[in-house]
Amino acid sequence: MNEADFIARLRDIATDPAARGLADDAALFEGLVLTHDMIVEGVHFLPDEAPQDVAWKLVAVNLSDLAAKGAAPLGVLLGYSLTGDAAWDEAFASGLAVALRRFGVPLLGGDTVRVPAGAPRSFGLTAIGRAPDGDVPSRGGARPGDRIWVSGTIGDAGVGLAMRLGELEPNETCLAAYRRPQPQLTLGQALVPHVHAMMDISDGLLIDAERMAAASGCRIALAMEVLPLSAALLAVRPDVLDTRLAAATAGDDYQLLFAADAGEADHIREIAEGLNVAITPVGHAAVGEGIVLTDHARRVALPDRLGFMH
Amino acid sequence: MNEADFIARLRDIATDPAARGLADDAALFEGLVLTHDMIVEGVHFLPDEAPQDVAWKLVAVNLSDLAAKGAAPLGVLLGYSLTGDAAWDEAFASGLAVALRRFGVPLLGGDTVRVPAGAPRSFGLTAIGRAPDGDVPSRGGARPGDRIWVSGTIGDAGVGLAMRLGELEPNETCLAAYRRPQPQLTLGQALVPHVHAMMDISDGLLIDAERMAAASGCRIALAMEVLPLSAALLAVRPDVLDTRLAAATAGDDYQLLFAADAGEADHIREIAEGLNVAITPVGHAAVGEGIVLTDHARRVALPDRLGFMH
Repeated sequence: MNEADFIARLRDIATDPAARGLADDAALFEGLVLTHDMIVEGVHFLPDEAPQDVAWKLVAVNLSDLAAKGAAPLGVLLGYSLTGDAAWDEAFASGLAVALRRFGVPLLGGDTVRVPAGAPRSFGLTAIGRAPDGDVPSRGGARPGDRIWVSGTIGDAGVGLAMRLGELEPNETCLAAYRRPQPQLTLGQALVPHVHAMMDISDGLLIDAERMAAASGCRIALAMEVLPLSAALLAVRPDVLDTRLAAATAGDDYQLLFAADAGEADHIREIAEGLNVAITPVGHAAVGEGIVLTDHARRVALPDRLGFMH
Repeated sequence: MNEADFIARLRDIATDPAARGLADDAALFEGLVLTHDMIVEGVHFLPDEAPQDVAWKLVAVNLSDLAAKGAAPLGVLLGYSLTGDAAWDEAFASGLAVALRRFGVPLLGGDTVRVPAGAPRSFGLTAIGRAPDGDVPSRGGARPGDRIWVSGTIGDAGVGLAMRLGELEPNETCLAAYRRPQPQLTLGQALVPHVHAMMDISDGLLIDAERMAAASGCRIALAMEVLPLSAALLAVRPDVLDTRLAAATAGDDYQLLFAADAGEADHIREIAEGLNVAITPVGHAAVGEGIVLTDHARRVALPDRLGFMH
């Protein structure tokens, strides 16, 4: 049973409207947005990752789900497994303090347990946010004709991971993207009134765009040649289609993917400029299903693997 | 670093009033009570436990924290680690459905991850409840002169565990107490206006009473001879002081421990009778600190181990 099978099984019991059919990364409840994400050693982070970075990532991946709802973070609950290594635990706590301070989010509570010796480290965080006024965007609102946008640059964290694994000459920008993802909270809040659908890119642009297409009942077409790649990524990878496909399937971007009426484009650009955040139109929604890729208007076959499955 | 050390470390960053100094089992937030508890294979449940029972326990231990606040459960978020055993995962999902239906609580969302092969099973649940009107009881409100009460019977789950381990001839009552703890939600909600302090007994009566004493800045005296023991427990253990001390330190009771003005006793008895729940006065709060035990008015030394430390 994989993640999708298990979630399908749970969907039978998550019948409350607040659960949004478990099709979203967050639940909507009495004006609050609630999300719970876990990270596991060997799956979501490397065994030799710095504990401060693990703490940062745990906070950032959860706040990124709030960002995609346009929610303002209000607090978190921590589920912590003691690792049996006091220095590691202490460093994690320090990193947690730094991350929570950075995003202005209080620790409200949680649970601390010990796990048997040798078990992989595993942590959970529940983040609570204030829902924006009006409709809270889901994955499922993209409409044929919408423009599809992404924030920031794509693929840096994937290259950062390759650097961490010794496969590429390291540079700070890509390593930082991998170690210290930045949830797009301010942008998410500002975009809410202007988008039809929004989600964060956690598992890879292609797989997440496919999820948006499925939830929206439409097709999403993405133009590979316009994907925003950073100079730091292009310093270690050639600017060819394979590099772009790798960037679009690497995951861990924690950028926003959103769909909006084409007529909103100027407004959306103004908002992003005002916040000094780069955004890029990367495609459009159409009648149909699934995702289709083009490169300079030529159709490109979908890669076997659209993103990170866990 | 043990649980207490780590929580002490986190307390420095949990400065928001909603966190209640991490001294409570739940956070209080905008009229909601939030709690997150984890259970780990080999620590909180046996490796051969039925998955339906594990799911029940995960729900029950979290709802028990809500019960102690007098909160009405509104929803849960699940943090699930796929076990690599599809039948186990399916049975867990079935058990989760049963438990949530039993308590009328919707599944709102959560996260599903895979863990490396061979890792112990580990699950988290965040429970959200509606805070009662007026003051929400904490551990810390007991006052000298208060009567100290417990709900139900104490020690059944501990004996149930011993039965599961083959140490005692099994009986259904004790096994059920271990496998299917019953959070005292209705009682907790009804008691709120009448108690000074309330908490659930998760780690053992003695250790939890000591926590209440510490948080309240008073001493709690407990009379061992009046501890409510079930007929099922006394069917397999002699009614001697050692049995009572074992019951008071076994943990997993998920009964309520509460402190109330002695003048409220009649009122409290009426409430419990109306709900058909047994409650028993087991001691009183006094000036001082820590807990003191007596047996038929003779002072009893504290056992080395006051409860389950995890």
